Amino acid sequence: MCQLLGMNCNVPTDIVFSFTGFAMRGGATDTHHDGWGIAFFEGAGVRLFVDHQAAVASPIAELIKRYPIKSRNVIAHIRKATQGQVALENCHPFVRELWGRYWVFAHNGDLKEFEPVLDGAYRPVGTTDSERAFCLILQSLRARFGDRHPERAELNAALEELVRQIAAHGTFNMMLSSGSELYAHCSTSLYYLVRQYPFVTAELSDEDVSVDFSEVTTPDDRVAIIVTQPLTTNEQWTAFEPGELKLFLEGMPVAKLSETIPANDAKISVKNGMKLP
Amino acid sequence: MCQLLGMNCNVPTDIVFSFTGFAMRGGATDTHHDGWGIAFFEGAGVRLFVDHQAAVASPIAELIKRYPIKSRNVIAHIRKATQGQVALENCHPFVRELWGRYWVFAHNGDLKEFEPVLDGAYRPVGTTDSERAFCLILQSLRARFGDRHPERAELNAALEELVRQIAAHGTFNMMLSSGSELYAHCSTSLYYLVRQYPFVTAELSDEDVSVDFSEVTTPDDRVAIIVTQPLTTNEQWTAFEPGELKLFLEGMPVAKLSETIPANDAKISVKNGMKLP
Repeated sequence: MCQLLGMNCNVPTDIVFSFTGFAMRGGATDTHHDGWGIAFFEGAGVRLFVDHQAAVASPIAELIKRYPIKSRNVIAHIRKATQGQVALENCHPFVRELWGRYWVFAHNGDLKEFEPVLDGAYRPVGTTDSERAFCLILQSLRARFGDRHPERAELNAALEELVRQIAAHGTFNMMLSSGSELYAHCSTSLYYLVRQYPFVTAELSDEDVSVDFSEVTTPDDRVAIIVTQPLTTNEQWTAFEPGELKLFLEGMPVAKLSETIPANDAKISVKNGMKLP
Repeated sequence: MCQLLGMNCNVPTDIVFSFTGFAMRGGATDTHHDGWGIAFFEGAGVRLFVDHQAAVASPIAELIKRYPIKSRNVIAHIRKATQGQVALENCHPFVRELWGRYWVFAHNGDLKEFEPVLDGAYRPVGTTDSERAFCLILQSLRARFGDRHPERAELNAALEELVRQIAAHGTFNMMLSSGSELYAHCSTSLYYLVRQYPFVTAELSDEDVSVDFSEVTTPDDRVAIIVTQPLTTNEQWTAFEPGELKLFLEGMPVAKLSETIPANDAKISVKNGMKLP
């Protein structure tokens, strides 16, 4: 299994504090030492850093802890290999283009008997179940909507259906973003919090570091952090329900992903309503 | 205009020495300060670093100069914007997937009246003529060969045809790799050399740095360096002919790209034969 970290903000924000604690789990406070990666959106562009070294030993992870790259949407991943060998092409996040936008995807979990028919529009480069799932999602979205970027509600409904189908194969905690939003799906373990005014001091659970966010923010800033296990000891983290797909926009979760859920796969239970924090 | 740097080797090699000189042109010894990028293949995976800051001021460029990432195929680019604003999504190299492999592309030049019809298989995220050209190349290869990776000779012939069509719109110095090879096309300025046994000391032209390659190589190592302007003062660089497309494999140029050139665009002169260095 792996661990995921996501950030969705209303203004470009650096993730140095949260990444510092998260990276400790890549071989120090936890055993996720089979590579790591992080993708930052900056406008339509993406900076992707991947490494098959453990995050605690990686000079690139060290750079990211020191160099505040500001972004409104970030997805990071530390890997403990279950499927696919330890190699750069198997490191998350994965990036592909659809509708003239980059899409970033990372997955924690294990999918069994998952060999989707891929038509060639998106083919995996590596050997993970995760990349196969990402290719299937993008292929299905393109097949459904063609060359047209759908409205948010249509996209939400399509993703809920797809995520349910994939999650039926096993554990599918995942994060997905095309730069303006962050989707997060929980099979087994995912937590989030929203940091906003009045900001407090937060203390990392994985390292003896704290930051007073009130000193580095303005009253209008709002940041949602989503992670496999809570990163701080003195903040209130909200657990996702198993089966929940949440959409984060402008630094907060959207109340209801869609009013109706397609009923063509009723045997799999899916959480529908989403509450504000 | 921009500058390009490519490396193709028979064993994984670090590019620290050549990149150090090249990066100086990103704002210090030359005026290419509108961003930069570098892509390293490692097996099937790619490490891509892009930055819209000048290479001389970039902490990420600093990391690459210090951290020897070993790769058999590298493409780097420093940008002076001609089309497209200074933004991350307009930084080269660009990376997309075709036939289950990542393809990396960078371009130096300016294409006029170049608005190819893109069918949606690959759509530009940014606003450069370069990314449009890359999308056209991949779309055309997929349209021609479908889901099948062609033989090298077929691919060479297809690329020669495509490159000629695109170069008819202006200046198209470019580099392209899918991890096992490096294609380089010259419209106006491109040089290469092959470093092999017996290795000598090389002196950078952009910075007061030299390296004795005999101390850091084995007799079997072979490295081709391809660049817009020679990087060293005491090595023999070979200029490309205008219109030449060269294929580099295992650290050296391939003698003949293809025996025959399709005759459907005879008005544009193309160099066919390629000599060993």
